[in-house]
Formats: sequence, structure tokens, C-alpha cells
Amino acid sequence: MNIADITPQTRVSGHYLVLRKEVRQGGRAGSFLDLTLCDATGRVSAKVWDNAAAISEQFQQGDVIEVSAAAETYRDELQLRLEKIRALSPDEANPSDFLPRSGKDLAALERGLVETVKSIENPHLHALLLNLFKDPDFRRDFVTAPAAKALHHSYIGGLLEHTTEVVELCGKVVEVFPALDRDLLIAGAILHDIGKLEELSWQTSFEYTDRGQLLGHLVMGEQRMRLEADRIEGFPEHLRLLLSHMILSHHGVYEYGSPKLPMTAEAIALHHAEDLDAKVNMFLGQIAVAREQGRKWTERHFLLQRALYAGPGEGEGEGDEGQG
Amino acid sequence: MNIADITPQTRVSGHYLVLRKEVRQGGRAGSFLDLTLCDATGRVSAKVWDNAAAISEQFQQGDVIEVSAAAETYRDELQLRLEKIRALSPDEANPSDFLPRSGKDLAALERGLVETVKSIENPHLHALLLNLFKDPDFRRDFVTAPAAKALHHSYIGGLLEHTTEVVELCGKVVEVFPALDRDLLIAGAILHDIGKLEELSWQTSFEYTDRGQLLGHLVMGEQRMRLEADRIEGFPEHLRLLLSHMILSHHGVYEYGSPKLPMTAEAIALHHAEDLDAKVNMFLGQIAVAREQGRKWTERHFLLQRALYAGPGEGEGEGDEGQG
Amino acid sequence: MNIADITPQTRVSGHYLVLRKEVRQGGRAGSFLDLTLCDATGRVSAKVWDNAAAISEQFQQGDVIEVSAAAETYRDELQLRLEKIRALSPDEANPSDFLPRSGKDLAALERGLVETVKSIENPHLHALLLNLFKDPDFRRDFVTAPAAKALHHSYIGGLLEHTTEVVELCGKVVEVFPALDRDLLIAGAILHDIGKLEELSWQTSFEYTDRGQLLGHLVMGEQRMRLEADRIEGFPEHLRLLLSHMILSHHGVYEYGSPKLPMTAEAIALHHAEDLDAKVNMFLGQIAVAREQGRKWTERHFLLQRALYAGPGEGEGEGDEGQG
Amino acid sequence: MNIADITPQTRVSGHYLVLRKEVRQGGRAGSFLDLTLCDATGRVSAKVWDNAAAISEQFQQGDVIEVSAAAETYRDELQLRLEKIRALSPDEANPSDFLPRSGKDLAALERGLVETVKSIENPHLHALLLNLFKDPDFRRDFVTAPAAKALHHSYIGGLLEHTTEVVELCGKVVEVFPALDRDLLIAGAILHDIGKLEELSWQTSFEYTDRGQLLGHLVMGEQRMRLEADRIEGFPEHLRLLLSHMILSHHGVYEYGSPKLPMTAEAIALHHAEDLDAKVNMFLGQIAVAREQGRKWTERHFLLQRALYAGPGEGEGEGDEGQG
Amino acid sequence: MNIADITPQTRVSGHYLVLRKEVRQGGRAGSFLDLTLCDATGRVSAKVWDNAAAISEQFQQGDVIEVSAAAETYRDELQLRLEKIRALSPDEANPSDFLPRSGKDLAALERGLVETVKSIENPHLHALLLNLFKDPDFRRDFVTAPAAKALHHSYIGGLLEHTTEVVELCGKVVEVFPALDRDLLIAGAILHDIGKLEELSWQTSFEYTDRGQLLGHLVMGEQRMRLEADRIEGFPEHLRLLLSHMILSHHGVYEYGSPKLPMTAEAIALHHAEDLDAKVNMFLGQIAVAREQGRKWTERHFLLQRALYAGPGEGEGEGDEGQG
Amino acid sequence: MNIADITPQTRVSGHYLVLRKEVRQGGRAGSFLDLTLCDATGRVSAKVWDNAAAISEQFQQGDVIEVSAAAETYRDELQLRLEKIRALSPDEANPSDFLPRSGKDLAALERGLVETVKSIENPHLHALLLNLFKDPDFRRDFVTAPAAKALHHSYIGGLLEHTTEVVELCGKVVEVFPALDRDLLIAGAILHDIGKLEELSWQTSFEYTDRGQLLGHLVMGEQRMRLEADRIEGFPEHLRLLLSHMILSHHGVYEYGSPKLPMTAEAIALHHAEDLDAKVNMFLGQIAVAREQGRKWTERHFLLQRALYAGPGEGEGEGDEGQG
Repeated sequence: MNIADITPQTRVSGHYLVLRKEVRQGGRAGSFLDLTLCDATGRVSAKVWDNAAAISEQFQQGDVIEVSAAAETYRDELQLRLEKIRALSPDEANPSDFLPRSGKDLAALERGLVETVKSIENPHLHALLLNLFKDPDFRRDFVTAPAAKALHHSYIGGLLEHTTEVVELCGKVVEVFPALDRDLLIAGAILHDIGKLEELSWQTSFEYTDRGQLLGHLVMGEQRMRLEADRIEGFPEHLRLLLSHMILSHHGVYEYGSPKLPMTAEAIALHHAEDLDAKVNMFLGQIAVAREQGRKWTERHFLLQRALYAGPGEGEGEGDEGQG
Repeated sequence: MNIADITPQTRVSGHYLVLRKEVRQGGRAGSFLDLTLCDATGRVSAKVWDNAAAISEQFQQGDVIEVSAAAETYRDELQLRLEKIRALSPDEANPSDFLPRSGKDLAALERGLVETVKSIENPHLHALLLNLFKDPDFRRDFVTAPAAKALHHSYIGGLLEHTTEVVELCGKVVEVFPALDRDLLIAGAILHDIGKLEELSWQTSFEYTDRGQLLGHLVMGEQRMRLEADRIEGFPEHLRLLLSHMILSHHGVYEYGSPKLPMTAEAIALHHAEDLDAKVNMFLGQIAVAREQGRKWTERHFLLQRALYAGPGEGEGEGDEGQG
Repeated sequence: MNIADITPQTRVSGHYLVLRKEVRQGGRAGSFLDLTLCDATGRVSAKVWDNAAAISEQFQQGDVIEVSAAAETYRDELQLRLEKIRALSPDEANPSDFLPRSGKDLAALERGLVETVKSIENPHLHALLLNLFKDPDFRRDFVTAPAAKALHHSYIGGLLEHTTEVVELCGKVVEVFPALDRDLLIAGAILHDIGKLEELSWQTSFEYTDRGQLLGHLVMGEQRMRLEADRIEGFPEHLRLLLSHMILSHHGVYEYGSPKLPMTAEAIALHHAEDLDAKVNMFLGQIAVAREQGRKWTERHFLLQRALYAGPGEGEGEGDEGQG
Repeated sequence: MNIADITPQTRVSGHYLVLRKEVRQGGRAGSFLDLTLCDATGRVSAKVWDNAAAISEQFQQGDVIEVSAAAETYRDELQLRLEKIRALSPDEANPSDFLPRSGKDLAALERGLVETVKSIENPHLHALLLNLFKDPDFRRDFVTAPAAKALHHSYIGGLLEHTTEVVELCGKVVEVFPALDRDLLIAGAILHDIGKLEELSWQTSFEYTDRGQLLGHLVMGEQRMRLEADRIEGFPEHLRLLLSHMILSHHGVYEYGSPKLPMTAEAIALHHAEDLDAKVNMFLGQIAVAREQGRKWTERHFLLQRALYAGPGEGEGEGDEGQG
Repeated sequence: MNIADITPQTRVSGHYLVLRKEVRQGGRAGSFLDLTLCDATGRVSAKVWDNAAAISEQFQQGDVIEVSAAAETYRDELQLRLEKIRALSPDEANPSDFLPRSGKDLAALERGLVETVKSIENPHLHALLLNLFKDPDFRRDFVTAPAAKALHHSYIGGLLEHTTEVVELCGKVVEVFPALDRDLLIAGAILHDIGKLEELSWQTSFEYTDRGQLLGHLVMGEQRMRLEADRIEGFPEHLRLLLSHMILSHHGVYEYGSPKLPMTAEAIALHHAEDLDAKVNMFLGQIAVAREQGRKWTERHFLLQRALYAGPGEGEGEGDEGQG
Repeated sequence: MNIADITPQTRVSGHYLVLRKEVRQGGRAGSFLDLTLCDATGRVSAKVWDNAAAISEQFQQGDVIEVSAAAETYRDELQLRLEKIRALSPDEANPSDFLPRSGKDLAALERGLVETVKSIENPHLHALLLNLFKDPDFRRDFVTAPAAKALHHSYIGGLLEHTTEVVELCGKVVEVFPALDRDLLIAGAILHDIGKLEELSWQTSFEYTDRGQLLGHLVMGEQRMRLEADRIEGFPEHLRLLLSHMILSHHGVYEYGSPKLPMTAEAIALHHAEDLDAKVNMFLGQIAVAREQGRKWTERHFLLQRALYAGPGEGEGEGDEGQG
């Protein structure tokens, strides 16, 4: 049973990934097991009220478990009371199948991106990008990676989705400003976040790797791009420099870890297109959650430093009774 | 003779607008007249070395003058040595014809924007925008106003150009994120800077009005939009609120004078599209100036806090000899 | 029984407003009801240990309830153990009577403010303000509204109290600086926060309205003032501009949502008088709470980013044993 | 002839203090002498076109000179063309008589402040302040010192004027908030800037002393206060602590050199009263200068980061032709 | 039994200081006692599950208690289940013996510092420092005080340890930059934090004193130094000024409470040496804790705004499985 | 004749590098040539009053010229009046011999650094560093490069001097904190600024390269280090990661272009040692300049945002007459 389909006061059975597991003091038995479960459709809180210590030893965070449970509500949120639990072996279930996943057709996005690569006329950029997409490891990772641990596009396929969107936006920006170098901007858009393939891991949950924490995806992505460029005979030094600069500066300001501010028109365009895409994705995601919960305002977001308005679209009437 | 066409060591005659006029001490005669002249194609520095005091009384800043002069170079920049000067009456020359002017076909942009207005399906937004464009004063101002005193699109027609570009970008953003309300976002894009019509004056130079300085175009634009909405029977209160919020929050952060941060998806999309357009316009403008002067780097920009790279496009070779 | 008069280890009965209601897991019965109650004299935490789910359905947040209870202490704070509960109908009790309320004589403050209005010599300002106070809705709201949701003067009558204090301080500032325009400054002081009447709601609790969150009281107050000015024949454009600027800039800095910095002497005087009043009110309020609890230091305040010293006044001896 | 009374195109003779003296290259003679002169009524630029080197050796910055000159205008500002110059000996003229000076009756302000001191009921504070004012050096300095080198009240008597104003404002604040300790707040207001007596020198110009630069008037003023308190038998430790805290924290924020944020109600009240007084003085001063020059806007102020509006008071009509 | 030596699933008995004591609701008996205990080797959480109210009355925070207990683990951390408790009288146990304590030989550090004092050639600085160390109260406090409440060197002897380290580093800085005044820099290093003796209390826990909170150790230390200098005949005014400046500016920036920025070479050297020492101490402390717990990353640190990498030293192999 | 040895009112002849050359309007001939000349001992301003245009064509910025001149003073600064000028060919003079140069024995510093490399016990770090120093291009550049364009150690040999000092300081830090990994910290200290070899050019003046501006020395240095590590068989991945992190994070904060904050103890130690060295070098340099000019205060420094005190060392007496 998909998590998105669970309703309160029903019986539930299914396979779920254990995102978090903690033994906590409290409850009638003195201690209980507090879990967060997920599948590709969502997350849910779950409790084991009896034999917490013993049951806790049967599986780990990152395992997939088979459960039988009762769905309840607690403080307006759904919660499972687990009654039977069985850990599945890696042969029985692949944890990564249970992570949140893009709602888009990833294969179609992938094909679209390859078409875009083919449209690049500059032979060096064309070669660089084609080589990357011919590398089966790169392609597998690029198609499955999330774009972030938590903030935006944080689901399987999120990086591909984000990259495709940034490429589309940059295409429009070139139409508006023909003085921009289209090939350079599109290549930068495709490459800007490839460092995330090394910065993040997404096997059983979305995490930073140690290298990712210590170096960051800007530096790692620029290194990867340079490696590819070095393999192409006659790749112009100056072109490599402009690409390096775009990748390193795409966060736009020092505070977000760009060691250099954008100093070319293509670099500033990429930064703003990328930021626009990430922010609109965040806003729509937050607002969708609030609307599902029937709330007019989202929770205050620690990074955005504000609550968002999820009120009715135009035409649905207002009803202003205070924010709550 | 257009200013853009003047070359050193030639004779020059023509009509130019006096942007700046100062009597300064120095020169062989003890004092001289230091001017900045412009026409729609550019600006040039000019000097009158003799009879400065007497000649200075014949015209004012904001006048158009007829001159005969010698073109020289001083410190790598073009400079006119004025020999004959005659002030033209308002009947002879309209100062606003001499201000820098968009290179785009403004009539075509205007027609395009009206087409966009017609494509809006929401009847209230459709009516509000049509009414605005039916107002001849609004339309005349909207088509001629600059988008800023100095930073970006600061030329006659700049506001129309900027608005058109933001509308185009927002159209693409809606394609990428269909969950956005297209009509609301496009209407916000068209309206976001209408306060500039009252914030700026552009008769004989680009200046802030007193009201513009004391209130700002965010508040003034929101007021103008609200006036129009109030004239439309049955304009939904909630829709007006969402438009007001978009106009007031479109600078995106408090530091740039938005009294509220964007809190809807359409508001954040508008802010980022508008910022992208302004910044790319600034970058391309700065870079073009440096390239004309044969320099690889622009001057450090006080607002951007950096110099921009105006080096050769890919394929033209590098040549790294230090920045100078 | 007033909440301010409850002492530990006694029986309590009375009518209280439910500010917050939550069912929580824990306690011997598995779940309990956790409430915050208030009346005009203060707030108190309350618990229902038995039949939480059933009892929870009998009333909502914002209702007034009749209770019989035992007063206990928990972690040095007073807490009620509720034994009997009955929800009162709106006929039986008006929730707004139970909200925290200014300790000042509000009717006297109201009379004083009207006297001040009458002392204004400028006929346009005089008319504008008199008209406002003749509007019975405005007057009712102005006399009851809090000045803020939480930070300062956050009690029924708080806006009237705050406004009166700012007017008094501005009167003194004019004495010190006779070059200031008294009528303009006093009018600005009276009008500066009238947008709060639309930004906040204070029927059953203190909340932001949706419009308040999306537009803010600076913009809303300026609009209200302008509406009034437009109704007065011959109201000078320039005077309206100066008032608009004062209202919009009274937060003094961009970071607190002023779209413009104060640029006139009256605007800067208003900002500082308003800030002084708010801050001293906050400090005295925080310190009073700590002294009631017998503590020398207040809790660290999230906005002030500091704890305040509530130690003894001079002459009462020190006793420095570390802050705890 | 007072500088304030000089008009263009007249002959001028008088005694002036030399605030600045520079030999510069230029002019017909190859070099000229560029001076700034002042007296108690204002400042004026002056030039010596001939024999600059020789004349320069006859006097120094800080000297008073007797001149005979022609008043001219240069770039809209008055300028003297000096023809005869004679340096006056200290016996002939006291430089400090030529520094800008408060327009208020300083003797009256001094008497008023002493009356305020006498009204303080707390015997220790009463004694501390009386002792200070009995010290003839302190009193002489306190009555003549400027309150700042340049920003606000930067004229002879400025500190006395500023202190008196802050005391008046604090008196009003105590009326509004009777919970404040009046004696403590008034004493803090009188003492808050006494460190300026050591931080600044004002013999021939307004300068920082080395000690002032290295320690600052907050620390120096607190030390002076403590010295006085130590001389009074039985001065309560706790009272001294509260005074020390007020003086050290009166700049209100770390960025302006307060080592501690205000943490008592009296300290926050003092900070805001002091800030209000300084800012209104700055605004009125800047605006008065612009109005004298017939300008609607002041120059952009480096510290305030804005230009101020010096437009007509209400009733005088507007006339909005752009800021220039 | 030392806290550092306790292992899970064993019996524990010993004397410990009560750092924190709270009665909390929950557990089978309805309420329980939640304690933090410490001795010189570490801290441990402890619970009393029965008779919480009665037992709570037998001792206070800051008391030393004798306990018999069972060691358990809860959420990966050690926790004591207390079974017998007896409060010890001050005669039986000195609370300060139970506070965390430097691992260094404090007597050796003390001797080393005195040797350094003797090496100072400037007779005034030599005398000032010797006098301080001859004062038995100063010496006892200086040898036992922590250097901070929580951030770095926050253990008995921490101030001595920190001071010694800063002195050592400054000694090296003088070698590298012989233009520095060695005696001045070393004296500043020894004196820079002596205000902490008054800012902190460390009898039964590490706390700020009221005076410490209201004045800060920069101002208090500068006062103490000045008192000592005043007792030495002929102590040069200028030397005292330079020392005062060093102490007041040693936090380096306004944001951390320095009323003045370092403006001499010795002051900037002291600031950086002090900051280096504090930061490396913090980093090593945080990393050591994480390594003991078998974790590769520390908790995110609120002041440092980052997690630290506690991964294996070089040669021990990596193992990058995501941060967790 | 060395520039450092020139005195006013004497005849001068010698070879100097042209750092800056401008034709300016003014002077008796209508235009003149304004130059800045330098040699290894300092800089001096120079003028050519006659035939400016013709003479200007005989040499370029970056050339070495032979001059005969008269030394004068202008505004308290030395200035040359050039009478004869001859441009030298590259065969006659090497421009880099005329750039400011470290006062230290560079060969000795170089030997010392190689000795330090040899003392590193970790075989991989030992090999990496030895290989670098065996590369003759690297060694030549490393020994001659400045450490910055302008701020600190901005002279030939400055990078070697700075690196040596940081290595020395880090050696001391390891003594104080033996838990640090000595080899790692020393290797990081040697490598931290090697990116400057590509970021700067120092043939005829100190400039940023285009690549340096667009990528920065942190990223370029990390790349260079990684290239070297890749050439060493078996170089541990984890060790390379720690070195990369140290180089990338050594600016310590995002604002100065570090894409990552220091997260290891060695990284934070390196950052602080490097910062200490740079700042003390800057302070001593600024103070030395002021003392040579007989001033007690340096000019306000744009980056440090303060003036520095260059007053007399202790024992030389004070003399506090205001800062001027």
C-alpha cells in the first residue's frame, strides 16, 4: 500500500524504507520504538509500543521492512501503530526504490537533454558533453541523483529535472539576449551541478559524502568538467576557463560558497536561471504540502526565513480569519 | 552628425543636448567651460577654452545646442573642442529626442505587449490591463520611459524593453512550472514597474522625482494598479491582494526596498525573472562598453562590486597579459 | 477568579479563554489535553488528564470555558489540573473580554488623543484626523487594538497606549527642536500605526490577517491615510506626500520593512520616538515578568538577542552569585 | 566681517582661522595657495594666486590671519581671492574664538543643567554630579566641547547642548514610563558623553586625541565616572555598576563600539533618547545647509547613506522638477 | 568511581556534583528527577524514577551527592539510574573539586608563566606583572579560573592554560617579526583575559557574574591593569595607553564586543594569536568528543555554524558512506 | 641612484621602471607627462613639463628608462622634474629587477624551506613537496612571486617570505597542540598559496592574470597540488582530500572566497596562522610608512577600515596634540 494512499482508521500493510529509527523512553512499557518510514510516494511516522528493544535489533536504518499496522492520527498527522515487522533482505527489496522520486517521466527528460547536447554547435563543447553522456556510470548517476539533500528537487531524478529546467530557461534567456553565447550558456547549464554526483549519496537516504562536505559540488564539478575537457584534443584553454568560471560562480554570491562572483554575462545568466528554478521549485513544494494539510500558510522555512501563502487561487474566494 | 559616428582629428557639426555644464578654473584663459553633450547615439565630453563666462550664459543644462567643433582625444577618450555654439529654442529641437534610446523597435515591442494583454483569460486582469493601455498618457509614458536612472535599461524605451523581456521570461517559467497561475504572473510582470512612470522623469535627462525618492516605485506602482482595479466592477479583493503583494515584493529582499518578501510562487518567480533580466542587461551593457574601448575588463562597478570580464569570445584566442 | 490571583495548592473556578488546545501522548491514560488559558489579567497552563479525546471535542481554541480545577506548581510555574469543564456560548461570554488588556485608563487616553487632534492648527491635518476619529468603526478599533502580536504593547488597548506615548514624546521633541513642523510630526505620530487595524485581528487571540502578512501595516496605513486625505477638498499634494513618507519610513531601516529610509527631519524624529517607546515598553515588560518570578535575569529574547537585567533597583543591595 | 555676512562681488576684510592650507600646482603662476578659513559663523574657501610658496611660509594651519580680499563665486560657491595676508600672534587672536559655535545661550544651558543636577534626590548621584560640576576644569571643558568631530553638534558648546537635550528628552521618557528610575536615567544622560572631554580636542580645530582614538569615549567616560564615585564615601557598588553599564552601552549596538548591549530599561531609554537627539540634529543641520543653497535635496551623506529632502514646508507649494 | 571510567551495564558508586536538577512529568510514577552530574573527569546524565518530589528536596544544584546507581545506555549515551542518594556537607566535599579540570600540569604552567614574567626587560611591565602575581587572591584565581563558560578552555585551569599558550604563540610571533615590541606583546598576552577573573564564577559551576554580564571582561580587565599601573611610580602614561588598547581591542572586531579595533601591530598580533589558540582548542575538543562516540562528524556548532570532520587521520583509511 | 636615497633639492640620474604613464592637461605648456617610477628600493612621482606628447611616444608603461632629473618636493612628497629621458631596451635592463623586493635573504629562506620539506616524515607528503621543489619553473616562480598585488608581502620574494613565516608559526602551533598532525599542517602551510603563481603576474608590475581573476588562487592551488599528488603512486585518497580541504578553506570565511569553511583542526590552524602573518605584515608595513613621513597615524586603510597608530614606542614619550 503506497504511503500516499493511507487514510486514518484503516489497516495498513506494505514494504517501507526505514529512514530513521530511535528507541525512546516513555509509553506504557517504559520505552518504545520511534520510526520514520518512506516509499516513493511519501513519508510517515510510525511507533512500536511493545518489545521496543528486542524489535529494534532486527533491522537498521536504511533497511526495507514489511509491516502490518493500524493507521491513526496524532496531532493532526497520520501515524502508524506497527504490529508486525519483518526486515527484508537486499534481494527482496532495493532501498533506493523506496526513496521519494520525481513525478516527471525521467526517461523523456533524459532523451530531451541528449537532444539538447546534440544541438550544440561548438565542436568542443559538443564533444565534451557527448563523452560525458556516453559514460554509463555518469549517465546512471545523473538520471537518478537528487538535486539536493533537502531544499529543492530533493528526490530521485531531481538533478535531471532541475538541469532540464535550467537548460530550458537558459534557452529562453538566449532568445531574449542574442548577444549571449548560446552554446556556452547551455553547456554551463548542463554541467553546473554535476559535482552533486560526488557531493551526495542517494542509496538508502539523501546524504552528503565526506568529500562533498569538505570540497563542495562547485569545486568537484569544475574538476570533473576539466578532466573531460583534457581528454578532448585541442579543447581551447580559454573555453575551458569560461566553463570553469561558470561552474565555480554559479551560486552567485560568496555566502553560498562561490569562490568567485559571476564576471561574464553567461555566468550571471546561469546563476539567475538556476536560482529562479530552485526557488520556484521550493515555493511550489512547500505550498503543495500546506494545501494538502488544509492550511493557508506554510510553516516558517528556516532558509527562506518566512512562511509562504498557500491561500486559494484567484476565483476561489478568500476568507481572512487570521493566520493561526 | 551622430555622436556615435565622430572620429578623432575630424571636424564636427551637429545638434546635441547639454547634459552637464560647469565653469571650471584652469586652462590658459584662467577658466573654461566643461560640458557633457549627448544625442540618441551616445555621449561625449566637450570644452570651450575661451570666453567661458560669457558663453556659459547663453544656454542651460537641458538645452539643445548647435555646435561646430574639432574632435580630439584626451586620455584615450574622445573630446570636442567647441568653436561655435548656438542654443536652439524648444521649437527648433526637442530635448527628449537627444536622450539615449533603446536600439529595439519600440513600436513592435508595444504591439507585442498589447497582444500579450489580449491573451490573458482572467476577465478582471484582462480588463485592468486593457484599461491601462487605453489611457493615452499611460501609454505614451510607458513606451518612452527608461527603466532606471542609471543601472539597467537606462534609455528611452528601456521600461518597455525591460517589461517585454520579463514577460517573455515569465512565459517560459510558466511552461516549466505549469502549477503557476499564468495570468497572474504575466499581469504581475506587465505591472511590476509601472510605478517608474511616476518615480522617474525623462524630459531632458533621467532623474528621480521628489515623490519617487520619498515613496519609491513599488508603493507608487501598487497604488496605480489598485486605482485601476477599483474602477472595474467586481474585481476580486483576493486577486487585487495577490497583485499588490507581487508588486510590493518584486525586489525580493528588504535591502532593496521591498516592504515584504515574496510569499507566493508567482511573486518569487516574478522577482527572479525581473532580477535576471536587469542583471544580464547590465552585464552586457558594461561588457559592450569595455570591448568598444578595446579593454578586457570593465571598470569596477560600484553596485556589482566587481569588474566584469570582456575578454574574447571562444575561438578568438586568449592572450593573458595581466589585467592592468 | 482572576488568573493573576490564583495561588498554588488552592481550588480554582472561573471563566477563561482557550488560547491553545492540544491532545498529547503521555500521562497515565496514554493521552492528555494540554491547554493555555487566559483572561484579561494573565495566562496559565492547564491539563486534563482523563478522557482527553472526548473532552477535547466539546470546545475549540477561541472558546471561553467554565472550569473547576486544582492549582499546582510544575517546574516553578503555576498549572491547573482541570476537573470540570463547560464551554460557554457566545451569548454567555465574549472572548475578547478575556484577552490581556492595557492597565491604563483607555477612555482617558482616548480623550487625551482627541484633545491633541484639536490642538493641531494646520486645517488640513486637523480635518483629516477629526474625520478619522468621527468614524465609529475606526474609533472602536483604534481604542481596542493591540500594537503588536507579541513584541510590545501586545494587549487590548495597546495601540492606543503606544500611540499616545509616541505623541507625548514627539511633543517633547518639538520643544527641543522648534525647527520641526509640530503639526506634521504630531499628525504622523497619530497615524503611523493605523495600518495595524487591518494588519492584526484581536477577536479571540492576537493574529496577523492574510492581508497584513502580504502587505504590511506600513503600506496599509499609508493607503488609509491617503483615502482620508482624498476626501478633504484642497488637501495639499505636498502635505500628503510628507505624511505618506513618514508612515512608510517609520521603521527606520530597510531590514524592518520600510521601503524608504526617513529623509525628512519629522520622519527621523517619528522613527526614533516610536522605536524608543516600543523598546522601553518591551524592556519593562520583560523585566517585570522576571521580577515576578524572582529572577535577576530575563530569558534571552529572540529579537533583542540578549537577556535583560532585572536585578534590584539601587539601594536594595546586590548579591552577585552568578547568573544561573 | 563675519563669514556668514559675505556676499559675492564685494570687498572683504577680517580675521579668520586657517583650518586647512595647501600649496597646489596650477594657476597662471604654476602654483597657488588653497585655504579653508572659518570663524564662528561659518567656513569659506580662499585662494592666493601669486607668490604661493613665500606666503605659505608666513603662517600655519591653526593660525588666525588678517586678510583683505575679493569675494567671488566659483561653481556656485563663495570663494575669496586673498590679496593681503598677515598672521596674528596668539596675543592678538585666540583660535578657539573662531571655531563654529552653538547658536544657543550656553550660560543658560549650563545653569539649567546645574538645576537638573540639584533636582536629583538620590544622595549618591546628587553628590557625584555636583562634585563634577564643582571641578573648574571639567566645567570649562564641558561647556565648550563639541559633541563630535563632524557628525552632530560639532561646534563649540555642542556637548552641552546635546547633553541638555538628552536630559530633557529623558525627563519626558520618565513621565511616560514612571517605572523607570528617574534619578538613574537623568544621571546617565548627564554623564553619557563626558568621555568626549578626553576623546576630542577643540583648541584650533575639532580632532580626536590619540587616547580618544585608542580607547574611545565610552570607556574613558566610564572611567571618569568611576573615579568620581570612588571619591564619595558609601557610593553603592550596585549603583556604580548600573551607571557604568549605561555609559558603556549607550551606543546601543556593537557596530558603533558599545562593548555591551543595553540590558536595563534605563540603558535602553538612554540609548534611544541619545540617538534621537543626534539624528534630528544631523538632519536639521544638513537640511538647513541645503536650503541656504536653494537646493531641495542635500548631498548624499556617507554615514546616513541617503540624501535628505529639504523641500518646502507644507503650504509653500511643491514644484517637482526632478532631483538634479 | 570517576565518570570517565563508567561503562554501561555495571554498578556505580561515587561522589558527584549536581550541575542541573529538574523534576519532570513522565515515567511510571508520574514524575521523575532528571539530573546532570559531573566530576573532574566528565559529565553524565542521571535519573531518579521513584519518589522524585521527596528526594528532590534533599539537595540542591551545586551540592555534591553520594550515589549508588546502575549504568545504562539511552539513545547511545550513558545514563545512571540512581538508587541511593545522600547529600554531602561542604565539609565532606568541595564542589569545585568536581568541576571539569585541565589535563595539564597547572603548577608547571604557573611556574612557566612566572619565568616569562621575569624575562620581561621593561622595568614597568616587569613590576606590574610581578605585583599581580604576588597578590595571593589574584594568583589563586588565575590558576583555577576557566577561560570561558562553554566555548574553549572551559575547565578549571583553562585560563592559565589558554594564557600560557597565547604567550608561547606570541613569543614565536616576535621571532618572526622582530619589529614588534616583545615586552609589550608578552605583557598584553598575559593580561588580556584577566577580566575573566571577575566576569566568571567557578565555585559550583561555570557562570557569568552580574558584573561580568553588564560590563564584560575587556573593560574589567583593562580597569584591573590600570589599577596596578597606577600603583607603580613613574609608570609611563603612554605605555599604559598601549596596554589598555591591547586589552580592549583583543576581540578584534566590534561584533565580539571590542569597543575599538586593534590599531597597533602588537594589538593585532595579540588578537590573532588569542583567536588562533581559542579556535584550535575548540576544534580539537569537539573532534575528540565525536571520535570517542565513534562518529566521523561533530554536531553542528551554534557559534562555528558548521559540523567538524572527525574522520580518521591519514593512513587509517577512509570509508565514505555518507555523513548520517 | 636608488630611489630610497634621493633627497630634495638635488640632481638625480639613474635607471627606473615606468609603473604608470599619463598625459594630462595643465601646466604652462597646456599638457604634461605624469609618471610613477620605481626601483627595488621604492617609488617616486615624476613630471615632464615640456614636449609631453612627443616624449610620451618614446616609451611605454613597463619599460625601464634612463633619466636625468631635479628632485623637488610637492605637498610634502618627493617629486622628480625629468629633464632627459631615454628608454632602455630589454637587453639593457630587466624590468623585474626594478620591482619592490623583499628585504630578507631569499636564498636563505629558500634553503630553510627545503630543509623543512625534508623534515616531513609522511612519505607521500615528503614526495609531493620534494617533487614540486625539483621542478625548476615552480622553484623559480615560488622564490620570486609576490604574495599579493597590494595588501601584504607585495614585493618580489613576498610569497616565499610569507610561506616561510606561516610554516614557522605552524611549527609553533604544533608544539602547543601536539594533537595536530604536524606533517599535514606543515605541508598545508607550504602549499596554501601556490595558486598565486598562476593568479598573479610580476614581470613588469604586480597584476592579476585573467585566469586568476576568474578562478582564484584557492581553486588553482588545489588543482596544482592534486596534479602533483596524482603523479605519486599510492598517494592516499584521504590524505589528498585533507590537503584539498586545507587549501580551499584557508581564507577561513566565505566572504573572502573560501568555498568551504575550515572543518578540521589543521585547516583552522592554517587559516589563523596565515591570517596572523598577513595582518601583522600589513600593520608593520603601514606603520613604517607613516613613521618615515613623521606621522603618528597612517592613512585610513580601505580594507582594514581604520587608521593605525604609528606613535612612539614606549619610553620615547607621547605628545598628544590631536590626530590631525
